[in-house]
Amino acid sequence: MKLASLRDGTRDGRLLVVSADLSEAALAPYVTLQAALDNWEEARPQLEMAAEALATGRMDDAFPFDAAACESPLPRAYQWADGSAYVNHVELVRRARGAELPESFWTDPLMYQGGSDGFLGPRDSIDIFDRNWGTDFEAEVAVVTDDVPMGASPELAAERIRLIMLVNDVSLRNLIPGELAKGFGFFQSKPASAFSPVAVTPDELGGAWDGRKLFGELRSSLNGALFGCPQTGQDMTFDFPQLVAHAARTRSLCSGTIIGSGTISNRGEDGGPGKPVSEGGRGYSCIAERRMLDKIETGDFKTPFLKDGDTVRIEMLDDAGQSIFGAIEQTVAEVERR
Amino acid sequence: MKLASLRDGTRDGRLLVVSADLSEAALAPYVTLQAALDNWEEARPQLEMAAEALATGRMDDAFPFDAAACESPLPRAYQWADGSAYVNHVELVRRARGAELPESFWTDPLMYQGGSDGFLGPRDSIDIFDRNWGTDFEAEVAVVTDDVPMGASPELAAERIRLIMLVNDVSLRNLIPGELAKGFGFFQSKPASAFSPVAVTPDELGGAWDGRKLFGELRSSLNGALFGCPQTGQDMTFDFPQLVAHAARTRSLCSGTIIGSGTISNRGEDGGPGKPVSEGGRGYSCIAERRMLDKIETGDFKTPFLKDGDTVRIEMLDDAGQSIFGAIEQTVAEVERR
Repeated sequence: MKLASLRDGTRDGRLLVVSADLSEAALAPYVTLQAALDNWEEARPQLEMAAEALATGRMDDAFPFDAAACESPLPRAYQWADGSAYVNHVELVRRARGAELPESFWTDPLMYQGGSDGFLGPRDSIDIFDRNWGTDFEAEVAVVTDDVPMGASPELAAERIRLIMLVNDVSLRNLIPGELAKGFGFFQSKPASAFSPVAVTPDELGGAWDGRKLFGELRSSLNGALFGCPQTGQDMTFDFPQLVAHAARTRSLCSGTIIGSGTISNRGEDGGPGKPVSEGGRGYSCIAERRMLDKIETGDFKTPFLKDGDTVRIEMLDDAGQSIFGAIEQTVAEVERR
Repeated sequence: MKLASLRDGTRDGRLLVVSADLSEAALAPYVTLQAALDNWEEARPQLEMAAEALATGRMDDAFPFDAAACESPLPRAYQWADGSAYVNHVELVRRARGAELPESFWTDPLMYQGGSDGFLGPRDSIDIFDRNWGTDFEAEVAVVTDDVPMGASPELAAERIRLIMLVNDVSLRNLIPGELAKGFGFFQSKPASAFSPVAVTPDELGGAWDGRKLFGELRSSLNGALFGCPQTGQDMTFDFPQLVAHAARTRSLCSGTIIGSGTISNRGEDGGPGKPVSEGGRGYSCIAERRMLDKIETGDFKTPFLKDGDTVRIEMLDDAGQSIFGAIEQTVAEVERR
């Protein structure tokens, strides 16, 4: 089952069921995705009936699906917590500044509490006031959970995963060092994220989801050129049930909680940092990682961060070349302070 | 106007208008506080009419107000961001470990993104699995905002403050050093917070609110003994409009965003750290601060953190001795993992 939220002038959008090939949609029997998640046991069979009717041409009011008319599946959420499960990414960032990776990073997940009060739509512009903020994208995978009790094991957490999405975790790189130096984590350096047009149930993903990880090539393009195509099932040190259990260690999680994987990052074939796409590698899911390679190789950060007018596209295709989650496609816009 | 959320088996509670003296309540014309905040221009006059009817005995279905039957005013929220506006508190914590306070801490607010997907009710137990977590309370003040545009000035932010509440920002002190060392801020060390039984509009506070700060004595008691009674209007380096503007620097804030002051902390009369209540001082709004004094004075942390059965009470009284926000009163309970 695939679900989306139509932008309809309300704060939480209008829930849609979407066909597997993303060609058609219909109004769902629940008004909002949060309402469905709050009552998933009852909502799920009703949503499945609607999805089935859509798939078999029995939905009278079906209409063409338009990702550009959508909000993020949850236009706002009660929780967005982002892990950093691809430790290769963390190691690379540290290596570029000559810092060691603590051994514990391989056993204790990194996770930060993100802002969840308003997400960008998958085709919304990324509005910034200042090009010197160092705007970057981060292509990730995220899951949406049902209620998770405090202290839940990874096994229990696995049973509470309801939906899978893609994310662009927009980051303002030049604000990060100052903010992290203050010791309280990210805040201004992590503005609103954007999620893929559709959220997908685990069963719909078939072999691409094994209950713990998503398997597929996450394609990030910058101004039309492929920038990264790592395998999401590879080099993921902590799987989603582990990340959810980490989040629930000292408190319960509410239905509609979104837990992210962190930037997808594969090692190179030699076990070192991966090569750029142009050199036959799998490239990078954010500009910062490319810059770390610049620094390691040349001593300088060469690749620029995003500027006004730059467009990022993030997508995953199935074996038949069909987009699974729809594409996040966002253009940076330098705007005036009002 | 005073508002509360009755625990009614739903996820967001049932909005109540509450009399100024907290003796009576009635169902509000909006079902939930979030729904009212999402539509404040329309909701406000309707809620005021209900509050006025309650105040003048014209509300037929009024009933005695029971803080113990309440959720936090927002049982869950889209955002909870906590500042650290009483720099005295930060300075003391740093001094105890021999660290300097960076000069920028006086001009650039500290703020962390807190978990907002589920708050404890004002009389709920604080459930912990492990006494070694070092459970502590933090007595604070918080505001609830309407929508705030990205880049809002403190002046604009001030106009968007809708409600004021008290907070117990529960903290697991022994998890903090390890978590902050990882560099991504608090996560497991900040379990669910609890808010005062009622949230109060600025106009209702009269002279206790000047549009920027709350003025009053915030009384924290531990097992019935007064532990702290600092003045909230004193030593607040960053006022609420500044904290809200800080949060909105790179992204807009959604209606129902909660912004906290951080632990209330007054300097002593000599300009140094304040004295305990037992020595005629204003005491402390968290145990950690008392322990810092222990450490500075004796070289050891003497005052223990909260243990199973300990009760914390947080309240503010008006000049007539009447509770303004109702009392947060919570008992720590060591519970078994399920």
